[in-house]
Parts: sequence; structure tokens; C-alpha cells
Amino acid sequence: MVAGCCDGTNTMTLLADLLSSIFDRRYRTFLPGSSDNRPMEELTAALLGASGEVSGSTIARIILDRYETAEEDEKLSFFNHLAEDMAVSPQDLRAALETYEKGQTKTSYETLVRAAEPRRQELIRRLNQVPDATRSLVAMRADLLRFSKEDDALQALNVDFGHLFASWFNRGFLVLRPINWESPANILEKIIEYEAVHAIDSWDDLRRRLQPADRRCFAFFHPTMPDEPLIFVEVALTKGVPSSVQGLLSEEREHIEAEDANTAVFYSISNCQKGLAGISFGNSLIKQVAADLSLELPSLKTFVTLSPIPGFLNWIEKNDLGPLPDDPKQLKALAAHYLIAAKRRNGLPLDPVARFHLGNGAQVYQVHADADLSEKGQQQSAGVMVNYLYNLSKVSQNHERFATSHEIAASSDIKSLSAAAEKALNRSPTDGQPAL
Amino acid sequence: MVAGCCDGTNTMTLLADLLSSIFDRRYRTFLPGSSDNRPMEELTAALLGASGEVSGSTIARIILDRYETAEEDEKLSFFNHLAEDMAVSPQDLRAALETYEKGQTKTSYETLVRAAEPRRQELIRRLNQVPDATRSLVAMRADLLRFSKEDDALQALNVDFGHLFASWFNRGFLVLRPINWESPANILEKIIEYEAVHAIDSWDDLRRRLQPADRRCFAFFHPTMPDEPLIFVEVALTKGVPSSVQGLLSEEREHIEAEDANTAVFYSISNCQKGLAGISFGNSLIKQVAADLSLELPSLKTFVTLSPIPGFLNWIEKNDLGPLPDDPKQLKALAAHYLIAAKRRNGLPLDPVARFHLGNGAQVYQVHADADLSEKGQQQSAGVMVNYLYNLSKVSQNHERFATSHEIAASSDIKSLSAAAEKALNRSPTDGQPAL
Amino acid sequence: MVAGCCDGTNTMTLLADLLSSIFDRRYRTFLPGSSDNRPMEELTAALLGASGEVSGSTIARIILDRYETAEEDEKLSFFNHLAEDMAVSPQDLRAALETYEKGQTKTSYETLVRAAEPRRQELIRRLNQVPDATRSLVAMRADLLRFSKEDDALQALNVDFGHLFASWFNRGFLVLRPINWESPANILEKIIEYEAVHAIDSWDDLRRRLQPADRRCFAFFHPTMPDEPLIFVEVALTKGVPSSVQGLLSEEREHIEAEDANTAVFYSISNCQKGLAGISFGNSLIKQVAADLSLELPSLKTFVTLSPIPGFLNWIEKNDLGPLPDDPKQLKALAAHYLIAAKRRNGLPLDPVARFHLGNGAQVYQVHADADLSEKGQQQSAGVMVNYLYNLSKVSQNHERFATSHEIAASSDIKSLSAAAEKALNRSPTDGQPAL
Amino acid sequence: MVAGCCDGTNTMTLLADLLSSIFDRRYRTFLPGSSDNRPMEELTAALLGASGEVSGSTIARIILDRYETAEEDEKLSFFNHLAEDMAVSPQDLRAALETYEKGQTKTSYETLVRAAEPRRQELIRRLNQVPDATRSLVAMRADLLRFSKEDDALQALNVDFGHLFASWFNRGFLVLRPINWESPANILEKIIEYEAVHAIDSWDDLRRRLQPADRRCFAFFHPTMPDEPLIFVEVALTKGVPSSVQGLLSEEREHIEAEDANTAVFYSISNCQKGLAGISFGNSLIKQVAADLSLELPSLKTFVTLSPIPGFLNWIEKNDLGPLPDDPKQLKALAAHYLIAAKRRNGLPLDPVARFHLGNGAQVYQVHADADLSEKGQQQSAGVMVNYLYNLSKVSQNHERFATSHEIAASSDIKSLSAAAEKALNRSPTDGQPAL
Repeated sequence: MVAGCCDGTNTMTLLADLLSSIFDRRYRTFLPGSSDNRPMEELTAALLGASGEVSGSTIARIILDRYETAEEDEKLSFFNHLAEDMAVSPQDLRAALETYEKGQTKTSYETLVRAAEPRRQELIRRLNQVPDATRSLVAMRADLLRFSKEDDALQALNVDFGHLFASWFNRGFLVLRPINWESPANILEKIIEYEAVHAIDSWDDLRRRLQPADRRCFAFFHPTMPDEPLIFVEVALTKGVPSSVQGLLSEEREHIEAEDANTAVFYSISNCQKGLAGISFGNSLIKQVAADLSLELPSLKTFVTLSPIPGFLNWIEKNDLGPLPDDPKQLKALAAHYLIAAKRRNGLPLDPVARFHLGNGAQVYQVHADADLSEKGQQQSAGVMVNYLYNLSKVSQNHERFATSHEIAASSDIKSLSAAAEKALNRSPTDGQPAL
Repeated sequence: MVAGCCDGTNTMTLLADLLSSIFDRRYRTFLPGSSDNRPMEELTAALLGASGEVSGSTIARIILDRYETAEEDEKLSFFNHLAEDMAVSPQDLRAALETYEKGQTKTSYETLVRAAEPRRQELIRRLNQVPDATRSLVAMRADLLRFSKEDDALQALNVDFGHLFASWFNRGFLVLRPINWESPANILEKIIEYEAVHAIDSWDDLRRRLQPADRRCFAFFHPTMPDEPLIFVEVALTKGVPSSVQGLLSEEREHIEAEDANTAVFYSISNCQKGLAGISFGNSLIKQVAADLSLELPSLKTFVTLSPIPGFLNWIEKNDLGPLPDDPKQLKALAAHYLIAAKRRNGLPLDPVARFHLGNGAQVYQVHADADLSEKGQQQSAGVMVNYLYNLSKVSQNHERFATSHEIAASSDIKSLSAAAEKALNRSPTDGQPAL
Repeated sequence: MVAGCCDGTNTMTLLADLLSSIFDRRYRTFLPGSSDNRPMEELTAALLGASGEVSGSTIARIILDRYETAEEDEKLSFFNHLAEDMAVSPQDLRAALETYEKGQTKTSYETLVRAAEPRRQELIRRLNQVPDATRSLVAMRADLLRFSKEDDALQALNVDFGHLFASWFNRGFLVLRPINWESPANILEKIIEYEAVHAIDSWDDLRRRLQPADRRCFAFFHPTMPDEPLIFVEVALTKGVPSSVQGLLSEEREHIEAEDANTAVFYSISNCQKGLAGISFGNSLIKQVAADLSLELPSLKTFVTLSPIPGFLNWIEKNDLGPLPDDPKQLKALAAHYLIAAKRRNGLPLDPVARFHLGNGAQVYQVHADADLSEKGQQQSAGVMVNYLYNLSKVSQNHERFATSHEIAASSDIKSLSAAAEKALNRSPTDGQPAL
Repeated sequence: MVAGCCDGTNTMTLLADLLSSIFDRRYRTFLPGSSDNRPMEELTAALLGASGEVSGSTIARIILDRYETAEEDEKLSFFNHLAEDMAVSPQDLRAALETYEKGQTKTSYETLVRAAEPRRQELIRRLNQVPDATRSLVAMRADLLRFSKEDDALQALNVDFGHLFASWFNRGFLVLRPINWESPANILEKIIEYEAVHAIDSWDDLRRRLQPADRRCFAFFHPTMPDEPLIFVEVALTKGVPSSVQGLLSEEREHIEAEDANTAVFYSISNCQKGLAGISFGNSLIKQVAADLSLELPSLKTFVTLSPIPGFLNWIEKNDLGPLPDDPKQLKALAAHYLIAAKRRNGLPLDPVARFHLGNGAQVYQVHADADLSEKGQQQSAGVMVNYLYNLSKVSQNHERFATSHEIAASSDIKSLSAAAEKALNRSPTDGQPAL
């Protein structure tokens, strides 16, 4: 019987623990490098040079260690070194391209490929050969993003980091894992830290989101960073689509058995790693979790989010749409209209959360007033929230239409509400009264 | 490289999680028993009877489930049933004994063994065949201990539980595991709950005891109760023997590398399971942990406790030894004297913690004033604490002498302090002044 | 994705491997005992005595090591020591019983319990405290079974071993695990070694029984003996009930998808540990596997064995039932009759395999001629085999009737065949011709 | 205690097994794609197009499944599609380069990077998002290598595969694991299959290389291919440097305890995955294993190979160096000379195994006659073998010198032997007699 069985989980912890000190000692023994005082430029050259092939791990460890303890200006100087000394050479690339155009052979192609790839990419790959290097490189890019805002060369360097990371953090290498009250504390404290939508204010609060039978949480991990969630989603299993987050998170709410739920609510999605900005896993996560849950709990029929509308009030203000209506119905209509009609110049929805879910193939499904009573919820959307619906059989088609013609999938309810709001807005300006 | 490897720990959690709902469903399917309304007496008879051999797991599950939701009086009635209806029959035993004395054959011995074992032991073994039953049975005995205080028959029942548990929780079946900040939260919350010596007041406090490189914690587990520590010990790795617990636990204390420590301090040992009272694992735990640590960290030379002296002030008061001396040295002398000279009628030390460690083969090593500033520490021992020394090469000999002739191992310091206290006590009564 | 995930299996192997040498070294360091030359009698006394509580693991290791390298006569002498010097004392037990009858208190009961348990039981429990001791003790009992055949005192000792093992190997502590082509080679070689019904003649043969999608194997393990299967069952997933084992095991047989099977055939069950003789897990194993499989593969509707009839020809010969009929139908009728009508004096079926499955609540379902063409199959049953049916909803009732009134469950086919055979047998003697 | 502990290894296997069918079913449910009959060109376009972002895993699965069951000509046609329709466009790259040269901004750099990367690279990344895709892609490249020998466009495609694989199979993502007799049978059968140096002829032969305390084997794995070793090395722990492989592998050889060995002999290194040709992990493997072993067994002082000399006789023949000398000493001298003096035009050693180990920083240490009596050993090197020495403290320096100036590290013994051979060769031609 598995339930009464021998619990490899903690055996692993035991072994890992016993081993950690062993490995610490090993690396101290085999890495005499801390006394290597060569400047960074020489170390990177060594790592890329002949001896780097064999003594690479020693040099890589020294570079990463030195970077980690560096001051801000030293870090910047390191990035500038990569950005300037290890960039693509347009001359070389032009020459390689000309040769290639003359004769497309394996050799001319290899030369082209090599000329098109800046040497810093190989440097980063070689840095990645020591234990825990991937984590350090992700942290390094988080630093770089701070420095690169105004700097073309650093932005180009950032493009290279992003290119490598997109390859390393390819969906095929990510591992989906449930996060629950049996998860290791060092991972759970990161969930507390990284939660970006509805803050977790204590371990008790965390337990309320993980332990009950009608709560789930899932995260993507990378094999080389087993303690670092990359992105996670919190899920509530409910009867019917919920209309407020305070209802969902209330300490006094009624718990149900997972088997009795018909709806899975994705009420919070948080990216965890600044250094992985732009490497998106969000849409895979939601679809994977929806697929897993529908397998485990066949009674689940509806997969929705309960999402904030961060740009709502800002849009009202910028467009001078007058004081907010008191009538919840009018407020909802306005929100529905904002979600499906307010667009950026490029034709995409104004609201960033809407862009994310519509881009994933979801549909704008329902809006609710008084759905988020927190200060943040009041300030950004007057407490209105929205459900995006993930209908697994329509996700591809919705996505396709959205991607090719910016067509927004919406329920008939939402469309009616939006139409009502539009009508009201069109006749309102005349009398200075709130239109809705 | 292991360090960068794939983290079976959480994979296990993932799988366990996915499976739990499957197994829940299976048992619902295969255990139609919840609608079985037979009285407990019939169910226990059925479990012991013919059909119990084959449909045992169904009946066992029903009995355990019904017990768990029972009221106090129903539980008592269940225990009385076991105590009275399933006891040893003196007549049967006498008859079996007579037959055995006449001819010691396999058959007569089997009959004797069967007659000497009350049927409730077989009942308990058959109850134990369903998942998680061991945990339920341990909880059952915790209840029984409450009921049995004044009741001979229930105490006899308790003897049988204890006898079975001693066999099931035999040292050979226990698993030693480190508890650390990577341990599952559901285990860590039990550490917080069960800590009986120096209360853990928050998750941050817990982290301070688990995460630093110079802190360790180990627990014994049983394979069938992988989430339930049976007993655990908290260890501080230090330079030199510490003289106060507030120094050890201070948030501002200086951290050291594990490799730089020469001393391991067992500063807290807590039993976790009331239902396992009397099944002792404490001495194995300390010796095992000492052995493991000395293997991992060869620089560790000294293994000591930093222990409370719970009976000290009580002893002073009962023996009317006058007001406490202000002089820390005199206070320490009095404590040393209490530890090695104050005896119960049976010749064993009066202090329960002293009995435990001396019984394990430790030596009374040092006493410290102002070592425990907590309210509890002040009340029970005026803040004095004691180090018991575990010298692995002398533990057997110390234990042997203590067990056979109640001889107490003590350092020469402790002996001198005790002698000074004795001298002072002998001359003090004349003038009513504090002797020390 | 779990499928592509990080494979804790082998990580565990890695860690276990790295650690094994560490632990070997530890025990060498902490166990100076190999130079302890005291006679066994002194060592057992020491283990049971005062110092045994603390230095127990050292003494236990010495005793077990010395036993393992002992000659046959030394082993016998060790068993005689346990049998004679550590038996129950009838006088002590009588005295304790008298005290208990005068007043049933906790103390008098404890004294009784202690007097009723021979000291060798506590000795065996204390031996069990070192790593791998359980395996050694199981091997020890396998030796004992060889020695004890004619010796009452050793048989009584064997009763005590059996009593302890029944408690330690309680169903609740066993773990069911699938055995497949991903299992460790050191476990697989034991499957080859222990297969007792249809010998496995090579690793290729083993692979044919484990790797195909329509083949399964499951074993019970004990947590302290993770590399030692206790009992295992081999299963074929088929369409319809199979009528011959050579069809099942043929290299050329047609493979099917597991999901397409409607029948699970338990075609081989083997006990692995001689030292656990008499501790039965077989009925739990079949029921558990049937339950697990029906959960995993809902299309499975029929659970049957394909079993040998080891006593068939022997019974014909002993009862002088004449030459075997050539007609397969007549042969099957005779076999059906043997299975349900041939009884021991105590009313139980003559055939040992029938006793096992009928005792588990199975039904005699079908018999097949030419079902086992192996030499062994021809010799013991002229190639006839039988299917026992495990109908999960009738197993309890069948078992109950069998246990209380020796009533044998059989299909109407079997009953008809048996009736035909009976009729034929009754009229046959007259003419000396074969009746069937 | 670990030894008596609960063996996560097999628990994992259990869970994995139970889950496999679940996942099979899931993917069948969520992947209705098998009925998708669009031509490959449309599928690849779809995967790269808008909908590929969301329904990617479905399309990827269809493409990979269809490829796996394709005929040779369909595979070739698929590769040609990637090679021709998804290559770099020189025009686009030229345009992007010109823009970039005019202004090096983030945007112009991104455009350049995109233009320099053929679209098939993104296609391969998107194919990699489904479970087990990495394994399929590695197998795909093994096919490609067969097709591409004479075809420039396919060779360019192969360059792209290689480029991606070098990133994915970066040393930092590989996991080193011991292979032993506790390893899963499905991995062990691959060791038998892939062994390329000294063939393993049976499971018994395999056991002789894995189970004894003085034998080790280690392999690199990738987290997404946990059952597929990438490269493995077999190690013998010996007293002294061995002089023949038949001595090492003899069934009758004397076994020693690992702790008594002073030498680790890498006697066989085999690459396993044709599809990973050119992605080298060999030097990391040897160094890592040497480091691990020296940590585990501090008594190990010498790390050597026992290697074949595959090009020796061929060199003698090509250079017309006359009949082989009968004198073993002369034969060894000739081999030493071949190893350190016979060069390719580019100045690197002629012998491929020598290139590998010298490139890793090893030293030519000893040569032995009659060291490989197998047919293969006789044919390629007249039975002579060589030890390359891995002196961890000199490996970097040796490598550096070899890489920059082709300087070959050799022991003084080897240098003397080579000098003797050279001398002999120089005077030999005159009389037509063998020089050595």
C-alpha cells in the first residue's frame, strides 16, 4: 500500500543533507581557485581559451564566485566587458556571409554560425558547467536588467542571455510539481515571497491556501534549480464560478471535498524569477494544470480565473469618463466594455492581464463588482474583478483568432454589458452626469 | 553532480500527491463498510473470526473509523470490552501450563503461548493491516492512558498495547532522519508543536534552529508513520561547551561553520507521541546522532547536553535548605550536590533528567548559573543548567555501573562543587543563615 | 511533465551507493567488537543484561556476525542455548499465575506477561536493533527449521520466532510494489531464483514476463529488507480465461494492450523466504493486486488463477482408479472431481493449492486438459490445470463457508464434471475397464 | 539508519509505474491529433505560426509521432524540408546586418539575431515541448547523420541540431550516476548494448563488472532522458597499475576491498548516443569520476586508463616498418614511439584514443605487451595496450601545452622506449631485417 509506505521523500532529504557537506568539502578541495587573482578579463579569456576546456569548472567557479561578491560598479564593469569585448563583429559576419553566399557548404555555414554568435554566448555556456551555475546566471541577468535600461550595448547583451535562457528553459525541460503543505519549507517560503497578486501574510495564511482538500497550487521547476519555483498558480476548487476573492480566501469559508467541485478557479499566477523576464511559461502552466486536474477530478467542468483588472480606473480617469457609477450593474458594464473594447494602438487590449489570458486562448466570461475589497483592488478597479474562461476545446481557436486578427472571445453576457456601457457613454457627455 | 541534480524529493511529493486522491477513491470503492451497523462487539468478533482472515481489512477499517469518531464514553466502553472480554483466561492458562509441564512438545507449547496471550493482542495486530492503522492505534493508546489511571483492567490492557508497540517500534525498524529547513512543512509544524523544552514561538524561530550551518536536528521515524516524528533532538555546533541557553538561541549570536565546531550540544530532546509512552528511544537517538555527527565532522570532539534541572528548587524547598545563595558559585555547588547526591528511596537520582542521561551512560560534567533566564528556568532551577557529557568510549561502562550499583559518573569539578556544598550544608543549620 | 522528469529512482541509487561505503566505515569505526572473544552464552547474557540497553547495538552486531560465520554444530549449539537456557519457566509462570488470580492488578499482570514470555523473545528483539538484522534473523530461522524437525525444544523456539515474525511482518508493515523491467537487477535476480511454479530460465525469459504491456508482477516487501521480495505473483492480462500455461508463456504469443484485456490471470505465486514459513501473506497479495489492477484498468472484469493440480495423479494412483482416460473430457471430469470431492480426514481438500485458494475465498472455476506440457505438469497432473476465480464480491462469503463448514465454492461446470466422474467411478469397478 | 531504511528507489518505481498508464491515458485524451492528416509542411508551419504557441504540444506530438513511423524516404523528405525551407536567408541577414551597422540598438540587434538563426532552430525547440521529445530529437539527428554525409544542405541542418544540442546537453545539465547491480535492468541492458571497447557477453559478465567491491561504473544522464546513459566509464580498483585487460576481467581474478586499492583504472569508455555525436562529455566524465572516487576512497593515489591503441598496426603497415618484432620489449618501444611521435599533418597524434586522452590533459604513462589477447586487440595493436595517467594536479597544464603547441606529456619510461625505437628504425632499412 502506498499510503503506508516508506516515504522516499524524506529519505531523499536525509541523503541530500548528509551529502551536502561532503560536496561542500569536495569543492573546497578541488577548487583552489579562490586565491586566483587574475582580473576578470583574463579569467573570461582563460575560460574561452584552450585550458578552459579542461580546467573549465575551476575557472567558471572563480568567475561566478567573484561576481556574486562584487560591488555594483564591478558588476557593471563585468557586463560592459561582455557587451563590448565579446559582441558580434559585423566585419567578420559580413565576410562569413559573403563566403557563405558564394558556396553553401558545411564549412561556410559553420563559419557563418560562429560569426553570427557573439563569444559571450559560449562564455555563458561554459560558466554553466558548475553546480548551481544556472541559478547564478539567472540572478546575473536580473542584475543586468537593472543596468541595461538605457544602454544599447547592455540591451544587446540581454538579448543574448534571453536567447540562451529560452533554449535552456524550454518547456520540455520544465517539471510541473504540486506545491502543498508537505512541500519543503524552503520552497514554501519562496511562495510566500513571490506571491504577487494576493499577498500571503503568514505561514497560517499559506496553510489555508495549500492544505484544504479544495485548494491546490502548482509550479514549474527546472531540474538544475530544484528549490526555485519559476512560476506558480494557486487554484481553488469550487461549486460554481466565484464572484469575489474575499469569499475565496475567507478563513470562515465552507470547505468542500475536491470530488464535489465542478469548477477550478485560477485565482493567482505569479512569476518568480526576475532573471527570467520575457521567457514565458504562463500559458503552458495553466493548460497543463487544467489538463492534470480534469484527469484527477473528472467532475471538474469549468476552468476559470478570478483576475484583477489593473488598468480599469486608470482608463476611466485618462478618458475622463466621469465619476464612477454607484450602481454595481453599471460598474460591471463599464468594466466589461473596458476589457473588450479598450485597445492599444496596435489593436491589442489595453489591460495587461486581459492580454495575457486572451493571448492564451481564454474568453472574457463574467465580471463581478465588490469582488476585491483590498486597498489595491479598490484603487485599480474599484473592486471589480473578471473571470476568464479556459474552455479546453476552444482555446486553440480563440488564440488563433486573437493572434491573427485581435478578435476577442467574450461571453454573450459580457458583450451585452459592454454594449450597454457603450450606449450609455455615447449619450452621457451632454449633461455632465455619470453616464452609467 | 548531485548538487545540481534532479531532486527526487519533490518528485516524490508530486507523485504522492497525485496518488492520494486515487487511493482515497479506491478505498471508498472497496470499503462499503461505513454502512455496517453491527455493534463493536460483533465487529471485533468478526475480525477475530473466520471471515476476518479474508475480509479483515474491511472490518478493521470500519472499527478504526468508528473509534475515531466515537464519543468519550463509547471509547471507554470499547476499551472495557477489550479489557474484560478479551483478557487472559487464568483457567485456560492453568490448564495449558499443566499440559505443558507434563510434556514439553511443540503442540503443548503452542497451546501455552496461545493461552498466555490475550485475544486482544491478535485483535490489535489485525486492526493494523489497513493503511495508516499504526498511527490510529498509537492515538488509541494515548486515549487509553487517560482512561486507565485508576483502573486495573485497563492498565492490563495498556500493558498489552505497550508490549505490542515495543515489538513494532523496535529500534531496528526506526529510521533516523535529519530535520532541516528543506523538510516538509507538515513535519516542521509538528516540531513546533512537540518541542517540550525550549518552546519554538514562530516559524522564524524554527528557521533559526534549523537553517544555520551550525544547527542540526534529528528525529526517529517509523516507516508506517512517515509524517510523525517519534522523538527529536536539537543540536548546536559550537566552539567550547556553552554555559547558557539564551546564548545558544540568541538571534544575535555569532554563526560559525560546522567544520569549525569542536562541540556538539544536545540542547533539547522531546518525545512526540503520547501513545508511545514507555517505549524509549531516547538513548539510541543521542548515541546515533553523536556517531553520525562525529563521522560527518571529524573535528567534533565533545558531545554534551545543555539540560534543565527541573527538580532543583523543589528539592531545596522540601528539604528546607534555606534561601537561595546569591553567589553564583554557591548556587552551582548546591546544584551539583543535588544532581549527584539527592536520591530517591530506590537509590536513583532524584532529578528526572539526570536519571535519563546517567541511565544512558553520560557523566555530570558542568553546571552553570544564569544559564536559563526564562520564567520556567528561573522557577524550577533558579536559572542553573547542567551539561551531561557523552564520552562515547565511556558510555557503556558508566551505564553499567549506574545500572548495577547506582554509581553516578561526574567530573572532578562537579565532585568538588558537591563536596563544598555538602560541607556548607552540614555546618549551616546552627545560625539560620544561608549555608552557601 | 512527470514522464520526462528527473527520475528520483536513480538519484536514490546514486546516493545509496555513495553512502554505503560511508556507513561501512562508520560501523567499522564504532564497532570494535570483532575482537570480543567471549562465548556466545556470555554475549547473550550481556545483551539481555544492564549494559545491553546502552551498548546493545555493539553486542548485537557481534552475535549476528559470529552466527553468520558459524559452522553447523555451532549454530545448533546456539539454538540449543536459546531453547534450553531461555525458555519459559513453568514454576515462575505458575507462581505469577497464582498471584494474578489473587489480584488482577497492573503489577500482577505485568509479572504474568513477563513470566509467560521466554527471555529469548527479548533477546531476538534486541538483536534486531542493528542495520540489516531483520534479514539475518529471518535467515537464522531458516536454519532453525532445518534443525528443529525432530526436536521438541527447538520446535518451541521456532514457535517463538514465528510469533515475533507474525508481529513484525504484520500486513500493515508490508509494502506492495510492482516488479518490472525498470526494477533493480539485484531484485530481479531474486525473482529468477525464487520462482517456484514455472521456472524462469534466463534474463530474456524474465523480460518476456515483465516488459510487455500485458504482463505484470507484484511483490510484498518489508521496509527493513528492501531488496528481498517476501512473496510475488506474476500476472497475465488476457482476453478471456486462458486454458494453458504454454499459451500464456509462448514467445510467439500475440501481445495486447493492457486496456484491451478483460481478464487478469495469476499464473504463478511464489514464497521467497524460507525463514518466514508459516507467516502467510498470500491471500492479502492476491486481493490487493486484484484491487489495484481493477482500479488501474477498469476494463478488467475477471480475476482468475491458472494453477497446477499437484496431487491429482498421486490421488488416482493411491485410490487405484485405473489407467488415465485418453479422452480429455473424461480427464477433466476426473480432475474436477478430485478438486471438489477428494478430502483429507479433517474435511479440507486434499490438494494443497486448492486449499490455499479456496481458503482465500476463491471458487473452482474451470479445468483444462493439455494445459501444462512441461515434464513436471505431466507427472503431477497429466497436464491438467485449473482456474480458481476470485470474484471480489463473493470472496468473503466463500471464505466464511469454507472456513466454518468446509463448503467448497465451484462453478456449475465443475460441479457437472465432478458429478459425471463420480457416476462413472461408481459403475466402473465391475469390468476392470477405465471408468472414464 | 539508512541501511535499514525505506528504499525510495523502489517506491519511485512503484509510483512511476502506476502513473505511466495514467499519463498514457491523459495524452490519448488530450491529443486527438492522430487523425490530423495535414502534410508535414503545414504542420511545421502551424507549429511555428500563431496557434503553435498555444496548441503547440498537440502539433509537436503529431509531428514527432509521424516522424517516428515514417519510411526512410519520408524522413529524408522531412529533413530536406527543414534544410531548404527553413534555412537562413542571406538577403535578410545582409539587410539586418546593414541596419545593425548603422545603429547598434536593442531592436537592430534582435533583428540581426533573428535573421542569423534559421527558423528550424525555433521549430526544434517547439518540438521539444512534449514528454520524451528530447529522446526523439536525438534519435532524429542519428538518422540525419546517415543522410547528410554527402549533402551540404543537410550538413548545415546538422550544424543547427548540433548547436542546439550543445546548449541543451551543456555540462551543467548532466547528472553523474553510478551504475551498479542495483541499477534498473532497462538501464543495464543498455550498458550491455553500448559497451564499445570490451564487449559484455552476458548478464553474468555484466555482474562481474558491476557487483564486486573493486569495480565501479559511472554514466552521465540528462534529466529528460533518465533511462538513457549518454556516456559511461568502467573502473577497476586495483593495487598497482595493471598490465593486461584479461587480467582485469578474468573470472578467476582476486577480488580486493575498495579501501585497499591504490589505483583506479578506467578500462572502458563508451559513447551511447549516435545522435549526440560531436557533443563531447568524455573529459568531464573522467575528471568527475576521478574526483568523486578520490573523495570516497582517500587511499586512491593513481588514476590511469588501460587503453587500446587502435591505429598501431595500421601505422606500421602504412609506413612499411617491416615485420613485427617478437621481443615484447621491442614491440613496446615501437608502440611508445607510435603514440608520441606519429602525427597527423595538423601536428596532433595519429592515434585517436591518444588524441582524446592527451587532449584531456593525461600523460602517456606505460605500455604493455600481451595486454589484450582478444582477436580485436591482436589485430589492431598486436595485443599492446597503454596506460594514460590522469594526474589531477597536472591535467590543466598538460592540456594547455597540448592544445597550444601539441606538446605531448609522457613519462620518462615512455620517452626512453620511444627514443630506442627511433634509433632502431633509423638504422634498420639497410639490411631489410626487422629493426626492433
